[in-house]
Amino acid sequence: MGKRIVIALGGNALGKNLAEQMGAVKNTAKAIVDLIEEGHQVVVAHGNGPQVGMINLAMTALSHEDPSHPVDPMSVCTAMSQGYIGYDLQNALREELLDRGINKPVATILTQVEVDPADPAFQNPTKPIGAFMTEEEAMKLKAQGNSVMEDAGRGWRRCVASPRPKSIVEIETVKALLAANQVVIACGGGGIPVYKSEGNHLHGAGAVIDKDFASELLAEELDADTLIILTAVEKVAVNFGKPNQEWLSSLTPEQARKYEDEGQFAPGSMLPKVQAAVKFAESKEGRTALITLLEKAKDGIAGKTGTAVCR
Amino acid sequence: MGKRIVIALGGNALGKNLAEQMGAVKNTAKAIVDLIEEGHQVVVAHGNGPQVGMINLAMTALSHEDPSHPVDPMSVCTAMSQGYIGYDLQNALREELLDRGINKPVATILTQVEVDPADPAFQNPTKPIGAFMTEEEAMKLKAQGNSVMEDAGRGWRRCVASPRPKSIVEIETVKALLAANQVVIACGGGGIPVYKSEGNHLHGAGAVIDKDFASELLAEELDADTLIILTAVEKVAVNFGKPNQEWLSSLTPEQARKYEDEGQFAPGSMLPKVQAAVKFAESKEGRTALITLLEKAKDGIAGKTGTAVCR
Repeated sequence: MGKRIVIALGGNALGKNLAEQMGAVKNTAKAIVDLIEEGHQVVVAHGNGPQVGMINLAMTALSHEDPSHPVDPMSVCTAMSQGYIGYDLQNALREELLDRGINKPVATILTQVEVDPADPAFQNPTKPIGAFMTEEEAMKLKAQGNSVMEDAGRGWRRCVASPRPKSIVEIETVKALLAANQVVIACGGGGIPVYKSEGNHLHGAGAVIDKDFASELLAEELDADTLIILTAVEKVAVNFGKPNQEWLSSLTPEQARKYEDEGQFAPGSMLPKVQAAVKFAESKEGRTALITLLEKAKDGIAGKTGTAVCR
Repeated sequence: MGKRIVIALGGNALGKNLAEQMGAVKNTAKAIVDLIEEGHQVVVAHGNGPQVGMINLAMTALSHEDPSHPVDPMSVCTAMSQGYIGYDLQNALREELLDRGINKPVATILTQVEVDPADPAFQNPTKPIGAFMTEEEAMKLKAQGNSVMEDAGRGWRRCVASPRPKSIVEIETVKALLAANQVVIACGGGGIPVYKSEGNHLHGAGAVIDKDFASELLAEELDADTLIILTAVEKVAVNFGKPNQEWLSSLTPEQARKYEDEGQFAPGSMLPKVQAAVKFAESKEGRTALITLLEKAKDGIAGKTGTAVCR
C-alpha cells in the first residue's frame, strides 16, 4: 500500500549556484523516484536559503547600478526562487521517472503561504538567508541596518523574520494534482509569505518561512501519512559531537520536548526539524515524521534507519 | 455555454517594475474575471519582455559585483520571471474572484516549452527583451557582443533568438487543473525554452519564445475554442497610421496572408499576433482567435468588437 508522503528538501542541499544545483537535483531525483517507484504518492517541498539570498543580492546589485530599480521585497525574491529551483527540480524528476519507464507528470506550483502579521517573529529576525560570510562582512552588513547572525557554527549570515505558516493558499491545486496522480513541487522556500490585509487582498511579507514548518503544514493539509525531513545526518542525535553522543531511531513527542528543554538541538538547524516532526506526529493518530539523509529516505520509509517521530 | 479560452497577455501590459505590475494586474484581473463570471473556462498565458530583461540585468549586475556568480542563462531567467509575474497575477485573480463571490482556485504552473535546437531562429536573434534604450546605449551593448534591434519605432532593445514552440512539457498538469475547474496561469514568458538532448534530458535554450506562439500552441493542445491575443489597439488595422487606415472586424487566414505579404503588420508587434491567430484559426474547424484590447475582451467574445480571425 502506497503512502502519501511530503518530503522536505534543504535549500543548502540544492547547491550554492546553478551548476551545483543541477548536480544536486540529480541525486535528489533518484532518492525521490525510489519512493515513487515503490508506489508512494510524493509531494516535494524545499528550502531556498542560498538561492533567495543570491536573488536578493542580484536585485540589490541592480539597484546599485540603476537606482530606478528598487530592491524587490523578500516575498518577490521567494517567488523567483520557486521558479529558479522548481525548474531544475521538476526537470530532474521528470528525467529520472522517464529513465525508469514511469510516465508521470511533474509540476511546480507557485505557492503562497499565509502568516500572521502579528506573529512575534517579525520583531525578532532569526532566519538565515544567503551565503555564509566572515564576521567582518557580517558586521558591515549589520552597520547598514540588516540583521545578521552566527549560523550553527558554520559562519555568519543575513537573517530575516521567520513567522509560522498558517495556511497554504494554493492547497486545492496541490490536492487536484495529487488526485490526478501527478508529482507536485510546492511550498518552495517555505512558500511566498503573505498576510491578509483589507478585504481579500494578500500582502507580501518581509520574511522567509521555515521550510520544515511549511512542509509540516502541507503534510497536515494534504492528510499525508509521512513527513520526511531531510538533513545532513542519518539520525537525530543527543549529546551531538560529544563522547556520549547517542543516535536515536525513534522519538516520541514527549522525549523530543525533554531533549529540546535540555538544549540538545541547534536552533536554525536540527531544532526546527524536530519541532516540525513533533507537530506532525501530534496532529493526528498514525502520522509519522522521519528525519534522515536524502539517500536513506527509502530505507527510512521501510523502517530500517532514520529517526521516526511518532506518538 | 461557456467556452474554453486561452488569453495571451503582453509583457509590456504588466508594467516595467513591481509597482507598475501590481497596478496592471488589477485591471488585467478584472477583464479576465469578467470572462470567468460569464461561465468561460480561462487559461492565462503572458509575456515577460521587460521582466526577464530586468532579471537578466540583475544577474549581470551581481556577476559584476561578485564574479563567482555567473550570469544565469535566459531559460533560468524566464523560470524566475514566471515566479515574479505569476505571484502578482494569481494574487490579483484570486482577489477579484473572491470580491465577486467566486470561490475558484488560481494557480501558476511553472511551464517548460520544447523548441527545436535546429530552429533557424537560433542563427538570427529577433526577440526584443528588457528595457528600451537610446541608440547610443544599444550600440554600446552591441559592441559587447549582444544583439540589439530597433523595436517597432519605440526605441532600441536587446534581442535574443525566438524559436517556435513545439510542445508544452507540463500540458497534462494544465489539463488536470482545468478538469478540476481551476484557473491556470501557464506558459509565462512564452514558457521556459528547452530542447531534448541525449536520452530524456531537457536542456535550457538561450532564447525567449514568443508568447503569442506559445499561447497558440497552448490553446491547440488544450483544444480551446478561442484564443484571445491582447494588444494595444482594439482591432487590427491595415494601412496603420495612414490616411487610408482601416480597422478590421474579421480576418480570414487568406486575407491575413495577403496583408502580411504587403508588409501591413509590424514585425515583433502585430505580425506575430496575426500569425499566431491565423495558425490557431487554421488548426481545427470552429476555432476563433480574437485580437483586441484587454478591456474589450468581454465585448470581443460577445462578437461586438476586436478582430476575429477564423476560417
